[in-house]
Amino acid sequence: SKALTIDEEVAKLLELKARLGGDDGKHQFVLKTAKGTRDYNPKQMAIREKVFNTIISCFKRHGAETIDTPVFELKETLTGKYGEDSKLIYDLKDQGGELLSLRYDLTVPFARYLAMNKITNIKRYHIAKVYRRDNPAMTRGRYREFYQCDFDIAGQYDAMIPDAECLKIVYEILSQLDLGDFRIKVNDRRILDGMFAVCGVPDDKFRTICSTVDKLDKMPWEDVKKEMVNEKGLSEEAADQIGEYVSMQGGMDLAERLLQDQKMSQSKQACAGLSDIKLLFSYLQLFQVTDKVVFDLSLARGLDYYTGIIYEAVLSQAGVAPVSTEAQNGPPGEESVSVGSVAGGGRYDGLVGMFDPKGRKVPCVGVSIGIERIFSIMEQKAEASAEKVRTTEVQVMVASAQKNLLEERLKLVTELWNAGIKAEVMYKKNPKLLSQLQHCEESGIPLVAILGEQELKDGVVKLRVVATREEVDICRADLIEEVRRRTSDAS
Amino acid sequence: SKALTIDEEVAKLLELKARLGGDDGKHQFVLKTAKGTRDYNPKQMAIREKVFNTIISCFKRHGAETIDTPVFELKETLTGKYGEDSKLIYDLKDQGGELLSLRYDLTVPFARYLAMNKITNIKRYHIAKVYRRDNPAMTRGRYREFYQCDFDIAGQYDAMIPDAECLKIVYEILSQLDLGDFRIKVNDRRILDGMFAVCGVPDDKFRTICSTVDKLDKMPWEDVKKEMVNEKGLSEEAADQIGEYVSMQGGMDLAERLLQDQKMSQSKQACAGLSDIKLLFSYLQLFQVTDKVVFDLSLARGLDYYTGIIYEAVLSQAGVAPVSTEAQNGPPGEESVSVGSVAGGGRYDGLVGMFDPKGRKVPCVGVSIGIERIFSIMEQKAEASAEKVRTTEVQVMVASAQKNLLEERLKLVTELWNAGIKAEVMYKKNPKLLSQLQHCEESGIPLVAILGEQELKDGVVKLRVVATREEVDICRADLIEEVRRRTSDAS
Repeated sequence: SKALTIDEEVAKLLELKARLGGDDGKHQFVLKTAKGTRDYNPKQMAIREKVFNTIISCFKRHGAETIDTPVFELKETLTGKYGEDSKLIYDLKDQGGELLSLRYDLTVPFARYLAMNKITNIKRYHIAKVYRRDNPAMTRGRYREFYQCDFDIAGQYDAMIPDAECLKIVYEILSQLDLGDFRIKVNDRRILDGMFAVCGVPDDKFRTICSTVDKLDKMPWEDVKKEMVNEKGLSEEAADQIGEYVSMQGGMDLAERLLQDQKMSQSKQACAGLSDIKLLFSYLQLFQVTDKVVFDLSLARGLDYYTGIIYEAVLSQAGVAPVSTEAQNGPPGEESVSVGSVAGGGRYDGLVGMFDPKGRKVPCVGVSIGIERIFSIMEQKAEASAEKVRTTEVQVMVASAQKNLLEERLKLVTELWNAGIKAEVMYKKNPKLLSQLQHCEESGIPLVAILGEQELKDGVVKLRVVATREEVDICRADLIEEVRRRTSDAS
Repeated sequence: SKALTIDEEVAKLLELKARLGGDDGKHQFVLKTAKGTRDYNPKQMAIREKVFNTIISCFKRHGAETIDTPVFELKETLTGKYGEDSKLIYDLKDQGGELLSLRYDLTVPFARYLAMNKITNIKRYHIAKVYRRDNPAMTRGRYREFYQCDFDIAGQYDAMIPDAECLKIVYEILSQLDLGDFRIKVNDRRILDGMFAVCGVPDDKFRTICSTVDKLDKMPWEDVKKEMVNEKGLSEEAADQIGEYVSMQGGMDLAERLLQDQKMSQSKQACAGLSDIKLLFSYLQLFQVTDKVVFDLSLARGLDYYTGIIYEAVLSQAGVAPVSTEAQNGPPGEESVSVGSVAGGGRYDGLVGMFDPKGRKVPCVGVSIGIERIFSIMEQKAEASAEKVRTTEVQVMVASAQKNLLEERLKLVTELWNAGIKAEVMYKKNPKLLSQLQHCEESGIPLVAILGEQELKDGVVKLRVVATREEVDICRADLIEEVRRRTSDAS
């Protein structure tokens, strides 16, 4: 209670300081958002809503339920799940209670949820913000607070069917968002591990070599090789053998060829992975998505918890030749410069078991849509486009041409609201007609219902189409129908 | 990097511990969510989505844009805004950067946003989670992480027009959510302050007496009076005078009467407030909402930043007599037991100025919907109702009656997905027809498209209506239209 009083006094002083501030013109408060975070303004929100609607429609089309989990978890729930990246977790201050951390992704809370509720099968999506104390990158669309859109299928099912559906979902979403050409790279952790084994990588170096391979989308093979040999102590021979494999890209045919490969076929693990890739491609054919999917041995992905198939979708810049399922050996050509990963995921059969007191496993496969990068692209497209982004859905503005008609405007807007019409009225007793019309122009409101003495006498409303300036008298009783008819797209 | 290694080792040990755990049957992880937080399961999410849709539709009908702000703010942004409640703010751990706190409400971030972007008028809604380290109450629907649904109008407008629209919005939302009868209490900070002044409360006791008045909805007048006299040191006479006023409820007529009241009319502030209440009621009449609105002098509301009109909506239990705008003197009768506030708000003309370096004011009025209590009520209603809450929107399940038809099922479900139909298929090579039908029963899928050798030969699909068990052969080419036709409500 003494501490409270001090708090109050401090608060009062701060308020006072803020009020006095005006005189010396100095900023008392640093008026900013926390490092690496941002506000979304109405225009950005309109774009965000559109993107979310596309994604959620797709998830629902595939029969997903949704769940939500708290923004923070017990610290120990997150411990031991993210390897090196654990240092990027935000902790809450210990204010005399539990040790809490902000969630780092949606996958670990999902696994905790399944174990806690003893759920052994579910198909769920979860769209929410996650938190990483990363250094906000120079690249666009990288924040410390950002959305993830996750779709996961948990349950003991026949091989590769849910996995193929995840890829179908990525394909549908990226096609519908109209982001230009893309490709979905596919690989399997078992193929990577098998490949490392047959190339002579010591067991205890699998992980670290794997994360070096993961850099292939950002650096040339020569540098990756250097890191393997000079930093990670791999033999030059082993590195060269890896180099041969990771340059391979293709489809089902490549999986078949590798199953015959003298070296690769020595690894049971690799063979299991390759057979599953074959099976996967057969399902992808039925799903009609093979034109964008490539089996790519250089795909590694950072997260530790993957146990089987992994995938990543990348956008190509315009003018990229369509990817066929025919073998495309060698690294992608100059024309297919990747503009970064926009979706990724894989199979993680062990994570739920880490939370279960008896270690019972629940096999899972899922995909996360990299929504922030997609927002950035959509924003750029919106800026470049001549079409204005509307931030409201208002169908009609109730206006008056003369003074002293506030009551009549409020009566009419009430009629419209009560009929479910999206309508606005200016909060002024006597607004100028021009400023009412300007507001419509600025916010893209298509119709104005204008009241004047004459209209009131005649029992009509003057309906003005903002785009064409056409005006027509509508009988008051027909107004609602007329507004609906003229804005049936917008509503 | 040494710290990192220790982290990694700890992580590995924890994983190992978790794995070994099964043998001795002990829980290594405390499998729970943080104190005062909860997961939402798919059923709860379905209810939540329905409620949000109703609320968002209303906000959009009234022409609101939406914004989003980060979940944490610089600590100093929140300092000095919440009075005593500041102790409930969650702080983040200082991990070598800024001092950050989780947002406590959406109003202060909104004010910060306006000042930071020099926005002087906007009508926006914001739906997001806020955080308060409250003691999770025994009462239902009280959490440390909870949603707020805020609608606010910022800008210099003519008196009471935006204020009246906020009340119209509360009225529409509570009516549409069908939560039973409700009333919206209205008062004004200036009337409260004027009343305290004319009753002889010393200036420096306004705030503390105000928060005692705020308890009138939870304790009887006798106890409130005791607190004023014994704890806050108010004279018995002053308390009794307050007691007389705070028992008054009514409509525009009460405001008129109080404007004539010998004592009350001595306060300029009170008169300004009372005139505005009169004006407000005249707009509420045009908005057709006066049947639920009561001018109630006992309404005080906790937050410091209110400067004018304040309001609060409470649900009444079933069987409450409708509130008329006629004076209802005396405390509400036994029959109108309040089940708690579900919305509240008011005018706060000074908050944005606290953030502006020059102290420039942006008048604001807004309302916050107490969504968690509404969720609780809707959940109880759903449990009590015979109707099952669907957690997906799947229109049709693609099933097979015989073995070896996985490929055919995947082909058909692809056709449906590509046509925008919400469809599911079991992730098994040879699922039993019964288990496919059971899945439909459980998750409320209305239709099953059944494939068999004969159907494939005939170019048809057997469409089964789950509810009636009726089955009909549909030509494959007509299936999509038929599914759409039969599920036009659900889609």
